[in-house]
Amino acid sequence: MPKTEKLQTPKARIPRGFRDCLGPQVAAEREMLARICKAYEAWGFDALETPALEYTDALGKFLPDIDRPNDGVFSLKDDDDQWLSLRYDLTAPLARYVAENYESLSKPFRRYAVGAVWRNEKPGPGRFRQFTQCDADTVGAPAPYADAECCAMLSEAIEAAGIPANEFVIRINDRNALAGLLETIELSGEELAGQRLKIFRAMDKLDRLGEAGVRLLLGPGRKDESGDFTEGAKLKDPDIERVVAFMKATGDTNGATCARLADVVGGSKAGAKGVETLAAIARELSRSGFDERRIRIDLSVIRGLEYYTGPVFEAELRAAFMADDGKLVRFGSIASGGRYDDLVSRFKGTEIPAVGVSIGVSRLLAALTRMNRGEDAAAGPIVVIAFDREHMADYQQMAAELRAAGFRAEVYVGGAGMKAQMKYADRRRAPLAIIQGGDERARGEVIVKDLILGAEISSQIAGHDEWKDMRAAQIAVPRERLAEEVLRVMARLHAPKAESTS
Amino acid sequence: MPKTEKLQTPKARIPRGFRDCLGPQVAAEREMLARICKAYEAWGFDALETPALEYTDALGKFLPDIDRPNDGVFSLKDDDDQWLSLRYDLTAPLARYVAENYESLSKPFRRYAVGAVWRNEKPGPGRFRQFTQCDADTVGAPAPYADAECCAMLSEAIEAAGIPANEFVIRINDRNALAGLLETIELSGEELAGQRLKIFRAMDKLDRLGEAGVRLLLGPGRKDESGDFTEGAKLKDPDIERVVAFMKATGDTNGATCARLADVVGGSKAGAKGVETLAAIARELSRSGFDERRIRIDLSVIRGLEYYTGPVFEAELRAAFMADDGKLVRFGSIASGGRYDDLVSRFKGTEIPAVGVSIGVSRLLAALTRMNRGEDAAAGPIVVIAFDREHMADYQQMAAELRAAGFRAEVYVGGAGMKAQMKYADRRRAPLAIIQGGDERARGEVIVKDLILGAEISSQIAGHDEWKDMRAAQIAVPRERLAEEVLRVMARLHAPKAESTS
Repeated sequence: MPKTEKLQTPKARIPRGFRDCLGPQVAAEREMLARICKAYEAWGFDALETPALEYTDALGKFLPDIDRPNDGVFSLKDDDDQWLSLRYDLTAPLARYVAENYESLSKPFRRYAVGAVWRNEKPGPGRFRQFTQCDADTVGAPAPYADAECCAMLSEAIEAAGIPANEFVIRINDRNALAGLLETIELSGEELAGQRLKIFRAMDKLDRLGEAGVRLLLGPGRKDESGDFTEGAKLKDPDIERVVAFMKATGDTNGATCARLADVVGGSKAGAKGVETLAAIARELSRSGFDERRIRIDLSVIRGLEYYTGPVFEAELRAAFMADDGKLVRFGSIASGGRYDDLVSRFKGTEIPAVGVSIGVSRLLAALTRMNRGEDAAAGPIVVIAFDREHMADYQQMAAELRAAGFRAEVYVGGAGMKAQMKYADRRRAPLAIIQGGDERARGEVIVKDLILGAEISSQIAGHDEWKDMRAAQIAVPRERLAEEVLRVMARLHAPKAESTS
Repeated sequence: MPKTEKLQTPKARIPRGFRDCLGPQVAAEREMLARICKAYEAWGFDALETPALEYTDALGKFLPDIDRPNDGVFSLKDDDDQWLSLRYDLTAPLARYVAENYESLSKPFRRYAVGAVWRNEKPGPGRFRQFTQCDADTVGAPAPYADAECCAMLSEAIEAAGIPANEFVIRINDRNALAGLLETIELSGEELAGQRLKIFRAMDKLDRLGEAGVRLLLGPGRKDESGDFTEGAKLKDPDIERVVAFMKATGDTNGATCARLADVVGGSKAGAKGVETLAAIARELSRSGFDERRIRIDLSVIRGLEYYTGPVFEAELRAAFMADDGKLVRFGSIASGGRYDDLVSRFKGTEIPAVGVSIGVSRLLAALTRMNRGEDAAAGPIVVIAFDREHMADYQQMAAELRAAGFRAEVYVGGAGMKAQMKYADRRRAPLAIIQGGDERARGEVIVKDLILGAEISSQIAGHDEWKDMRAAQIAVPRERLAEEVLRVMARLHAPKAESTS
């Protein structure tokens, strides 16, 4: 336990690699997660919350896609000298939970989880040391039905989050298909893990480097534009051909893909099993009415294959956006998952089949934000101006009426004057300000000031007519009809642009 | 960074003092928090999410109600040798955030936060090392308007969570009123903190020990039933009289309380300020239509007074419940808050006024659960039995139709037979099971089995007529009318008891 020095003024700073999120950002993420969770729940999955800290040995080395499994974790020693770590994903705690409660769980055990995870890594742009994951897993069900269901549910969850069905695709591959390929090129031994990883990484770059680039990485190695050299996997030419044939087996229909894949890897036992599983998943999804173009077998899906033990899934957005430098950037992967039948084998020594999916929360949210589908969450509250502090209770009554009508509304409770209060309303992104001074009170009126229209007018007009024109953005309404008039004004604000400025 | 020993089988166990929450429990808490957050948002508060880890020196010793401020915290050293700690509350990160971003914040700054906090303490029954807090604070607004608003909003938030207005009371006190009392008994010096704390603790026990017990604790000390002796604050008799007079100043109306309080402490500067603030808050709340019996000045509210610098609030449930031992147990405090004008003074050297409230999430949830107001959240999914695996897609279609009709529904995707599947449905608390074997398929029917009615019947009847009677709990319905018939059956299940068994 550290001793903090007293009497020294600490500097207020967030730890490096972490971030704060305020208001609209939080609301948008929460809304998105609520929709996804609702979809998971509809499919019969129950929420599971496990603690942030786990015993370090129980977390184990279950970190996917990372070579250094157990550094990269925040760890500390408990009073009783046992090491605790902050969870780095939601799968390792699931494994601990299932192993600890196995006898009492109803099986298959279907749970989803949403929560923060922590990685003790070097932070970088867009790479944080705390982020949110959102997983759903079925434990205790063999392929292919649970796998097909997992893809179907993922598709519904992404749609529920706000991405239309025609804007994303779920691509499926199978670890056994790849294992079959490795068998045929004699690379399946335990001691060849390093070389296999090189091959996986080369295959994963098909999109970016094209076939020629991947061939170089599978063979002698490749020098990039900057002159940096990446060592190759040193495969012989016929083996490179097989790997390329594997990647190119992906056809226009799942049937065609399975047929070609059987040609390449069907001769090996693992390969045949992979083809059979892929065909069965495709069949179930097709029977459930899923379009082959929306959920399709794609043998270029490589990520996670080292980690998963059977089918793997990856959801990818079709859309791209224009980056600041004018380049077209694809959103890419927003979710991934697969089967990992060794979930609890570390604890129990037996294999329990499991399949699951994990949504990339920040990526999906970034995509939704770019697609402009989180706007309403950014709306600030209506601000009732504290014109005359003797009448705060009246102002609170106005705010209460507006809340009862379904709006966010607050009275300014700070100590500043009118001008600062109007500025406050602007900065809070308030759509309206409500004002009642002595004159208005005497007439039984309140002023409803349209801050959005007001901002538009004042950005268009400069000069001495300004004040007069600004008046266009405010109306006096009878006090007793405040909520009703606000409803009317807000309805206009939310109408399509062409109408709102008429 | 700890090295984990490889090849050793780890034991699957949750760290001591932590807990897992599954399904209905999670759903009930989430539903409750969503309602509270919605109330906070309606009042113009924005969500703020800060990271779980903060620099230890920035967290400081802001831990309320605890004598040992900086042990009790989980801490670890970052790569750059700076100490990080898991936040122990949501106020210390707020202070860091406000101090770090002060210039760019719109003021008053109104934020709410919901999240886990961690205490490195000895766990006990019902005392966990990770739990959830739910706070709302206004930074940069002086008393009394923001304070009155805070009480009013807290009242609405508790109602929104599901506690009727007449079942809780918000009690208000003021640190300055108590400071006035301490001035009159000459105990306000910095060096007398220990003795002051003893007095606070004694006063806080009025409910439990009565006036006589408190008098002993204020004076020579008190021996309890078990013979343990608690040292007293050693006040002289006239000072004890003043403290007791203070506690007994609480009257039936806020006006009466303020008048009596002014008699006891009005002579001191702090005391007069306290009386004035309490009267102003009471006035604003009364003008806003709050009943004095629902939000009332109560000078026996002591908890947190050492921490807060002005008014303090405490929300208390009126209800009590019968414990297992037959004793009547009161739920007690479910939320507390107050003004703490030294929020960021540690960082900035200047005082910024702040007032806030914190809801005791697990206490409030426990109360709601006892009051039976979280039932629906516990409903399991409808389970479609996988009678014949060749027809999984048909079963998935049935589940999809039920989801479209608004129900949770899943197909059994495990590998077990009929009997195990029915047991699974029971354990998942499924209200219905849907079954279609070959005979039903041939007739174009499905069986809808009412598991709740089935369980009732089988608990009432034993013997050879059982199977026949069990049939009463299931109906065959045309396949194309599945969703419609399920709607009908579920509507009956959710009808009042008297009808559901007729």
